[in-house]
Parts: sequence; C-alpha cells; structure tokens
Amino acid sequence: MQRVTFSTNARAARPLNIATRRALKVRAATPSSAGKPAATPAKAAASTAATTETAKSNEEQCVGVFCLEYDISNEPSKTAATWKPTIKVAVSGAAGNISNHLLFMLASGEVWGKDQPIALNLLGSERSREALEGVAMELEDSLFPLLREVNIGIDPRSVFEDCDWALLIGAKPRGPGMERGDLLEQNGKIFVEQGKALNEVADKNCKVLVVGNPCNTNTLIAMANAPGLAKENFHALTRLDENRAKCQLALKSGVFYSTVTNVTIWGNHSTTQVPDFVNARINNMPATEVISDREWLENEFAPCVATRGGALIKKWGRSSAASTAVSIADAIKALVTPTEPGDWFSSAVSTDGNPYGIEEGLVFSMPLRSKGDGGWEFVEDVIIDDWLRGKIKASEDELKKERDCVMHLMGMAGGSCELGPEDTTLPGEA
Amino acid sequence: MQRVTFSTNARAARPLNIATRRALKVRAATPSSAGKPAATPAKAAASTAATTETAKSNEEQCVGVFCLEYDISNEPSKTAATWKPTIKVAVSGAAGNISNHLLFMLASGEVWGKDQPIALNLLGSERSREALEGVAMELEDSLFPLLREVNIGIDPRSVFEDCDWALLIGAKPRGPGMERGDLLEQNGKIFVEQGKALNEVADKNCKVLVVGNPCNTNTLIAMANAPGLAKENFHALTRLDENRAKCQLALKSGVFYSTVTNVTIWGNHSTTQVPDFVNARINNMPATEVISDREWLENEFAPCVATRGGALIKKWGRSSAASTAVSIADAIKALVTPTEPGDWFSSAVSTDGNPYGIEEGLVFSMPLRSKGDGGWEFVEDVIIDDWLRGKIKASEDELKKERDCVMHLMGMAGGSCELGPEDTTLPGEA
Repeated sequence: MQRVTFSTNARAARPLNIATRRALKVRAATPSSAGKPAATPAKAAASTAATTETAKSNEEQCVGVFCLEYDISNEPSKTAATWKPTIKVAVSGAAGNISNHLLFMLASGEVWGKDQPIALNLLGSERSREALEGVAMELEDSLFPLLREVNIGIDPRSVFEDCDWALLIGAKPRGPGMERGDLLEQNGKIFVEQGKALNEVADKNCKVLVVGNPCNTNTLIAMANAPGLAKENFHALTRLDENRAKCQLALKSGVFYSTVTNVTIWGNHSTTQVPDFVNARINNMPATEVISDREWLENEFAPCVATRGGALIKKWGRSSAASTAVSIADAIKALVTPTEPGDWFSSAVSTDGNPYGIEEGLVFSMPLRSKGDGGWEFVEDVIIDDWLRGKIKASEDELKKERDCVMHLMGMAGGSCELGPEDTTLPGEA
Repeated sequence: MQRVTFSTNARAARPLNIATRRALKVRAATPSSAGKPAATPAKAAASTAATTETAKSNEEQCVGVFCLEYDISNEPSKTAATWKPTIKVAVSGAAGNISNHLLFMLASGEVWGKDQPIALNLLGSERSREALEGVAMELEDSLFPLLREVNIGIDPRSVFEDCDWALLIGAKPRGPGMERGDLLEQNGKIFVEQGKALNEVADKNCKVLVVGNPCNTNTLIAMANAPGLAKENFHALTRLDENRAKCQLALKSGVFYSTVTNVTIWGNHSTTQVPDFVNARINNMPATEVISDREWLENEFAPCVATRGGALIKKWGRSSAASTAVSIADAIKALVTPTEPGDWFSSAVSTDGNPYGIEEGLVFSMPLRSKGDGGWEFVEDVIIDDWLRGKIKASEDELKKERDCVMHLMGMAGGSCELGPEDTTLPGEA
C-alpha cells in the first residue's frame, strides 16, 4: 500500500504539529472499513497507546478514505501540480440542514476556486456524532477532487486546530417561550467556548463567519474571547438578507436580479435590519429613480425581506437551508474575489473605525469592498439620509442592548439585560 | 417597467409556441407579490380569459422574478453576450430531497458550464404544489446569474414542453409489504404517462435521465412510450453506485479516489448490480494487480457498494440525497464533456447493438464514452472474464424478468410477472 505525507506549503510550515495530530487520529468505524487499508490498524494502535478512551472520544477523527494522506504535488494529474496549498475549513453544526448543502458546495471548488484543495473539519455534538460520520461518508462518495481531508469531532479545541476558516453555523434553537435574552445567554456560552478555542488553536489569520443566531452578538462574544485574532476577521452573515433584498428590488422593477447592485443590509440580522434602497442601484441607476413608489420602498420592502424566511417555511414546511448555504458561499466568495468596480457587498463586522457614525464595539452589517485577499474596507461614498439614519439608529440601539446582555460573556464588567419583550428574531429562524 | 422578450437562438426558433405558452402562464401567488411588477395583472388576466379554472391549475406556472422575460443579448454584462442559447431542464420529484440539492447545483452552472443559461421546469404533485413554490422562492433568493426561468406544475404535458433534458427523480416509494412486482407496476404507470408526455411535447433531442426506482425498468417503460425520441437518449442512473465503487477501491488500495478510473457498474440498479474490478484501473494499473485480495474483490467489494445506502441511513437517519444529487450532476457532465482519453463511465442505456452479448431490448448499465455532445458510444476493449460474465448474466436475468412484468405497460403483448419473492431493492432506497 502506498502511503505518503503531505508536502504542500501550508503543511510544510508546521510538520511537527501535523505529525502529532495525525498520530493521535482514530479512524472512524464506518461501514467502508470492509475495505480498510493496511495502515489502519497501525493508526488505531498508535491512538490507543497515546490516549485514554475518554481523550480519544474528544479527539477529532478522520473518516474513511480521508484517513489516508496524499502528496498532491506527486499526483499524476497535470492540474493538481499547479494547485494552491490546502486550506483547512472548520464548520460547526456540521450535521445540520444548512451544512448538508454547504459542505458539498465548499468541496466542489465553487467557493475558493478549482485550484484550491480543501480539508473539512466538522464539528458536531455527542448527539450528532453518528450523523457526522454519515455526512463524511456522503462526501467520500462524491469524489470531489479538491477535498483532501475530512475530520469529525465534538471538541472545538481539536476541530478548529490550524483552521484557515471557521464557519460557525451551529447554535441552540429558540425553545418555546424563550425570551431573546435567554437565547443570547445560552448561545453566548457556546460562542465563549468557540472563541477561546479559536484563540488557542486556529491559524492566526483565520476568518470566522458566524451564521448561528443571534449571529451579530454571537460574533461579538467570539471576537471578545479570541483577542489573538484580528477583529476584522470576524463576520456575521447578513448575505441571505442582502440576496433577498436584491431579488425583491428586481421583482418590483421588472428586471433580472443580476442588474441590481450596491445593496446594503445595515445592522442586526433581526427584524430591525435595514435593507438599503437609498444607495441601491438598478441597471446602474438609483433604485429610487427606477422605483418611484417610495411608500413601498419605505414600508413594504423591508418587511418583505425580513419575513421571507417565514413565508418560505409556510410554503415549504422547512427552513431555507439551501439558499442560506448559497448565501454563505456568496459571503466567502465576496472576501476571496475582488469586488466588482463600483459595487459593494454587506457583512456584519466590527464597527471599530467605521465612517458611518455607528457606535464602536458592536458587530453591525455595513457596506464593504474587498481586494479578494480575505480582507475588506468600508465603503466611503454612501448616502445616509434621514430615513436611513433613523432606521440604522434603531438597529444600533438593539445591538447595544444585546451587547449589554452579554458583557459578562465578553469578559467585561457592567452591563444589564434590558431587552424588551418584543421578539425581533427573524420569522423562519429558530 | 422594462419588459422584453427572449431572443436567444433556442427561443427564436419557436417564437409562436413560446408566445402562446407565455400568454397562458399564471403568476404563482408568492409572498413576494408585495413587490409585484406592473405586468402581473395583465398576465393573470390573459390567463383567466384563455383558460378555465381547472385548466389553469394544470398549466405550468412561472414563479416570482422568473415570470419576467429577459433578453440576455441586451444585458450590460460583458459575459452574458457570449452565452449559449438557454436550455430547458425539466425535473420531476422537484419538491423532494434529492432535487433540493440538485436544482441548486444545476442552477449554479457547475453542470452545463458557466456560459449556459438554464430554465428549470419543476414537476410535482397536487400535494407538493406549495413546496414547489417554496423551492422556486429559494432559487429566486439564490440569485444565480444563469438561471433565467423557473416554472412549476403538476402536469408532465405542460412541464416537459420543449425540454432539452428531463431528469425523472420522482417515483412512488415502496410501501410496507409491497412486492417488487407491485412496485414495478405502480411506478411503471407513472413512467407510461411521463414517456407519452415526453413523446408529445419534449424537444426531439431531449435527453432523459431516470433516477426514480426501479430505474432501469422505469426507463424501459418511458422509452417504449416515447417512440419519437431516440432510444440512445434514455439513461437510468447508476453513477452513484459507480462513485461508491471508486471510493471503496481507493480506500482498499490506500490511494486517493481520483486515481481510480475505468470503473463500470454493469446491469440493474439493484443488489444484482456488478461493480467491475476486472477492468478497473488504479494509478493506471489494473486494480487486480494493486489489490491482490481477490476474495475481497469478489465477495466483499460488491456488497459493500450495494449496502452503502443502507449504512448511510443507519448513521445519518436519512437517505443520501446530497451524494445522489452529486452523482446526477456527474452523470450529466459525463455526457456533455468529452470523456478523458483512456477512461470511461457507466450509465444504464438501451442494450440494442451492445458488443457485450447482453440481450437487446433491456436498459442495462454498461461502460460508455462520450464526445461531450450529449451522445455516447459503447467501450469496445473491455475484458469480460468468466466471473464477470456470470454476474452480468444474473443481473440480465433479473432485468428480463422485470421487463416481462411490465410488457403491458410497453404496449407489447405477452409477458408474465415471475419475479421471485427476493427483495433486490438496494438498501437505503424505498
């Protein structure tokens, strides 16, 4: 049996680390073990020798064919020789519905490009461990050429190790009768743990995208608990809202959605979010000129975007996992490909240094541009009229209250939770 | 409001037909109707005037932003001007789990290429009509630049109109205590109707891929009921089995799956299927040289592939929709991109004229090559040793019996259903 070690640049930079981690890996007992390679017993033996049963169960595990190691630069394929060093992508909530769409999109090369090999590290819970194996088996059976490693685990300290991207999709759903404050508290604890884990083990340039709700404040908590990572590398997902807003503007104006540009979602990923028609452009004309119905823009457009998830559940009987996954892919692509000249995208990021007058120390969706290097910059030339200013303020006030509820989770003194009884969770989201 | 008509080549070829169909369309009442364009009432009025309520409910309906018509050649995008004429893809079982993955893969441009605009026609049932709207809404929200039209309906005669591809995913699941003969009969009726509809309204070069089980015999029935379409254009999906076989050979030999080539699934998509290790190659060497364990190849490999779906359900709690969708995408790509030199793929097609000595008049999975024009040819230089011949014969016998059960559905006299009580449905499939 042929067995070789990784020799791509990313790996070569940390050989000892990888060697240690690999030696500890336990091969998951998948049904494919009928055809297990000769190396497997040796790996399992090494693991048993090095760890106790308990430790082993918390260690990330490779799955099936992904337990083998491949030297891409030695492969016969002409294309593989020109590939970039492998990136490691950690995904939480990996056994859930959104991930079940997203992982296959990521592995296909649609997001990072057809020359970017990928390692997927899947984080689940004790309850979802078997399901994680099932997901990994489906990834095996899909034969994605760029997918070179799949590991599963339930300990973020293991699963986030060396990751270049962390896509934090998992969160506790809102239970019946649960106040938004309780939801913040319960999910906040998850993001304290995950923030600390990222701080300890992730690559120092790791980009973090939080999807689990309430995502803005979860991001704020993770960021506060990962002081070793740059704040600019944290994002909360508002891209699905942006995509929905573009579609509604297209529909209203009778044009195809690809002609709608410069749409921003401002603020919180909640019902206080502000889809910005003031700066939006349709066929390169101001949206407010194309759509003369200001009443619709001010009073119907935003609720239509915010209630879209609820309308979908009503039709479809389940939440919009596929389009959420597409929007996550879009959000990543927005950071790794240069933004089209004159256009922008929105993402909820740290307000520190923002030119819009929004209080610092929050995570707020704002208009951004990227050079395609994973970083971003604020868009300077946006119009904030009185209407927009008022709406932004309302979402800012909500996020300040959410921050006050979780200051203890951010390692800060003070703060008291004064969120009103009003439920601003987006319909269609738990 | 801007409104223009299609002027891509495919459309220009049949302007009257399209005009008629468009005039009859009813805009589905989605929640996005808050932002409905001015053209909508006119469309609805035209429909009401032209059809009765009953007729209307059987007519395919466009959804949301896809009710608008776009002249791609007039769009500002530089790339759109070089796109191919739009192709129309009909998908049955469109509200199901496999489609929920597949439709987004198709719309992304992964399958037919980034210069191939697509119209999706979604076929559901009366029961799934609302869910179809939900799927269409998620497709809207995904803003795929290449997705130019989405129509939903429950009458194949309407949904299949002018389609270039028909992906027949929907089928009745096997009920408790149902014999395979009953399953053949019940599903057979669906494929009689769909075959007739394809014959009447599909494009004469339409390619048909059947996924709904029992897919080989369903394909045979559809083919017999669509004499106006070439037999070569009908396929039953065995690509998931092929992908699983490649993965297991890779795992056993300790290499990455992309180095495993020339794998054929022979025969029926059932437990009698034959994953062919005799002709398979690993790192361009015969698989039988790389894997010396003939016992495993003969007695463990095939069951391991065939029971993979069942093992997945056990882990994952649901059937393998994502990897099935990936394999459907692979099966289409195999026909629209030239096969790599020296390699081949397998698909279940008409046995007429096959060089392997398999009885004509069946739908049987065999090794094929394609020039990438949608057509295929048999692979001539395969080794069929005694072991393989015996296994192929067993699957052939099963398919002959299945054919005998459904001859009345193929418009042929004779035939009696003598399928044994043995259940050869693949574990993990209804």
